[in-house]
Amino acid sequence: MSSLAPALKDAAALIAAMGAATRDAAAVLAATPTATKAAALVAAAAAIRGSAAHIEAANAGDMAAARAAGLSRAMLDRLHLTPARIAAMADGVAAIAALPDPVGEVIARWQRPNGLDFERVRVPLGVIGIIFESRPNVTADAGALCLMAGNACILRGGSEAARSTRAIHAALVAGLAAAGLPEAAIQLVPTTDRTAVGAMLAAAGLIDVIIPRGGKGLVARVQAEARVPVLAHLDGINHVYIDKAADPAMAIDIVVNSKLRRTGVCGAMETLLIDRAAPALAAPVLRALLDAGCEVRVSPELIGLDARLVAADAADWDTEYLDAVAAATLVDGVDGAVAHIAAHGSHHTDAIVTDDAAAAAAFLARVDSAIVLHNASTQYADGGEFGFGGEIGIATGRLHARGPVALEGLTTFKTVVRGSGQVRPA
Amino acid sequence: MSSLAPALKDAAALIAAMGAATRDAAAVLAATPTATKAAALVAAAAAIRGSAAHIEAANAGDMAAARAAGLSRAMLDRLHLTPARIAAMADGVAAIAALPDPVGEVIARWQRPNGLDFERVRVPLGVIGIIFESRPNVTADAGALCLMAGNACILRGGSEAARSTRAIHAALVAGLAAAGLPEAAIQLVPTTDRTAVGAMLAAAGLIDVIIPRGGKGLVARVQAEARVPVLAHLDGINHVYIDKAADPAMAIDIVVNSKLRRTGVCGAMETLLIDRAAPALAAPVLRALLDAGCEVRVSPELIGLDARLVAADAADWDTEYLDAVAAATLVDGVDGAVAHIAAHGSHHTDAIVTDDAAAAAAFLARVDSAIVLHNASTQYADGGEFGFGGEIGIATGRLHARGPVALEGLTTFKTVVRGSGQVRPA
Repeated sequence: MSSLAPALKDAAALIAAMGAATRDAAAVLAATPTATKAAALVAAAAAIRGSAAHIEAANAGDMAAARAAGLSRAMLDRLHLTPARIAAMADGVAAIAALPDPVGEVIARWQRPNGLDFERVRVPLGVIGIIFESRPNVTADAGALCLMAGNACILRGGSEAARSTRAIHAALVAGLAAAGLPEAAIQLVPTTDRTAVGAMLAAAGLIDVIIPRGGKGLVARVQAEARVPVLAHLDGINHVYIDKAADPAMAIDIVVNSKLRRTGVCGAMETLLIDRAAPALAAPVLRALLDAGCEVRVSPELIGLDARLVAADAADWDTEYLDAVAAATLVDGVDGAVAHIAAHGSHHTDAIVTDDAAAAAAFLARVDSAIVLHNASTQYADGGEFGFGGEIGIATGRLHARGPVALEGLTTFKTVVRGSGQVRPA
Repeated sequence: MSSLAPALKDAAALIAAMGAATRDAAAVLAATPTATKAAALVAAAAAIRGSAAHIEAANAGDMAAARAAGLSRAMLDRLHLTPARIAAMADGVAAIAALPDPVGEVIARWQRPNGLDFERVRVPLGVIGIIFESRPNVTADAGALCLMAGNACILRGGSEAARSTRAIHAALVAGLAAAGLPEAAIQLVPTTDRTAVGAMLAAAGLIDVIIPRGGKGLVARVQAEARVPVLAHLDGINHVYIDKAADPAMAIDIVVNSKLRRTGVCGAMETLLIDRAAPALAAPVLRALLDAGCEVRVSPELIGLDARLVAADAADWDTEYLDAVAAATLVDGVDGAVAHIAAHGSHHTDAIVTDDAAAAAAFLARVDSAIVLHNASTQYADGGEFGFGGEIGIATGRLHARGPVALEGLTTFKTVVRGSGQVRPA
């Protein structure tokens, strides 16, 4: 695409030209056998390994520019590609090649009395637009998942990762070429001009779905502006509810892991709900969080349990900290937990800890979130942990894919009807 | 709701107030057992039958106003409720009560090596907004399908059907009340002011999905303005391709039925594609359409076959006539048919007539439409004919439900994860 950029005057024309090429590639991919897609990914993984030095050098350029621009340590860490991370990226691409191909799967089949035979068959979504920020490895993950599910994609990475992204993209294109697939199947927007994002969001008919990968600012902008369907989550305001019938030791393990294993992931717990009927459970769990270095903001009933606790204000129940900070309050059993989550949750991931099967069943049925867990950490909200071989993101919308989006979430279906000359009576 | 309307100054406040009540009702419905939902529908069907005279009188008022306003005969026919149509409406509601409840169905289950158990469970979509025009029976169909799938709904009917819609809505509410369900589960917007439509389209967070039922103008407006996901189709530019290996008699039957059984339905054929390798098939099929009273607009190669044929112009390949008019052209086999449909189709419904299994397989695999048929009429594009017990519409978008949308399409899913204390390793 690099030869195209100078010729095009504006972002809309650029995206239109890319979209047309990508759509043609999508038609080819939709009919491409599994083995060919897998071969392209295996070749891409080899190309990533073979060009590791080049990718590392490109990343060093990005890192130098980012340091000069004063980017935060967290952003620098997301941007940095070590040899181990490059190897893991190649392994990830090769692993996706080994996943079952969802395309062509018959997900339902039925007959009608008139002899018509119906099959619901998985087909690719088409053209996926991925808009991401500073993690250059999204290039490889997203490109590989889209390809394996038979989709073409248009990738638009952040300006701070531009050199790294281009180097990784070149390896993916080498994989496509090695398998005889159209190079336009994985395209990289050749500019990091922000107007290109706007053009992608408006490209209904050219792009079938947009998946933003990045911070809340990016996701909010995409959700507000997109004229193309979006698979995303804005917030992960996730809860762990400790029921009165919880095993105390399990409750501590799950709460500490849910909050602190990684605080910056969307599946991290943000609010702890404790059954008012089990006051004895509260102190040990809160102390475990405090001892592990977590700030805990609590409702007035809990404030006396430990001198390190601080008072929560109303905003805390609606805050995604993404940090070593948690809110905690008492609730009136499962009913109270369900009501609190309905009022303050973000339909992402919520867990109950209990040995009471009826309480668990009520919580799992009534909490309206993409992922609900019983006696397990919210940090399992992850496509890899679901067994999907990775994920392109987690969706909290109500339509189409919900929860981790991987190969299956990157497909839709059509209905194939087979007859023997049936015409419909008046 | 009628007492609410005068108190509210603008449509957004009205929809916000309705949306809040509907969302509370949706939470109740999501946890309502199948038998209760079915009981409400059976009671609603009885209420429709019991108030048939009232519904007929209300409809007579709409009809008189519509005649005075000079509405077209087609619109008057859509608006008209005969005793037979009212009885059929009641039967339809009762039939939906007997359909399998999709909510709670476990659509996938798997385990992970760490012992976590995953279940993908169907749950309702939530709050559905239905925007329809002159067919008052949509009130009953849509309300019943939404309820059986556990969804609350906000119905906004056309002004010309306002009296009929109110009378039918009252019967549905009587059914809800008889089963002890919240009356807000099926709400009717108490004004036919067009600004109410705009407020519904903007009601992200209150309404989960919008389904427009009506003409192209309505659907186009909804698709252009909605900030809420939309399930709809704009066009049904549907094709029948007659392959060289088609049975000639079957080809005639399927083409005539696809075009003329009903010309105003979205599943009607608009363009006939004939294999260039089988010129002998063309004349009898074209004559059968002409003899049945259809205008046929053809490409130059076909114009000599019958004096009644007229020349197509470029716009004909992209036109949804919804009338006794068809376009016809020759194509180069399956490849040519697939290319023509990719260039001109609307991803709705396309059929091949052939006795060649390989040609059928290629067409079914490569045509990128919600419904693809082999040796059957395109007029089978209908939820009832699919065995779904009705439909709330046909969707041609690529995400979520595709094709006829019925109970299953009115659900989404969540993932229930059951553990025994698992926490995620770093």
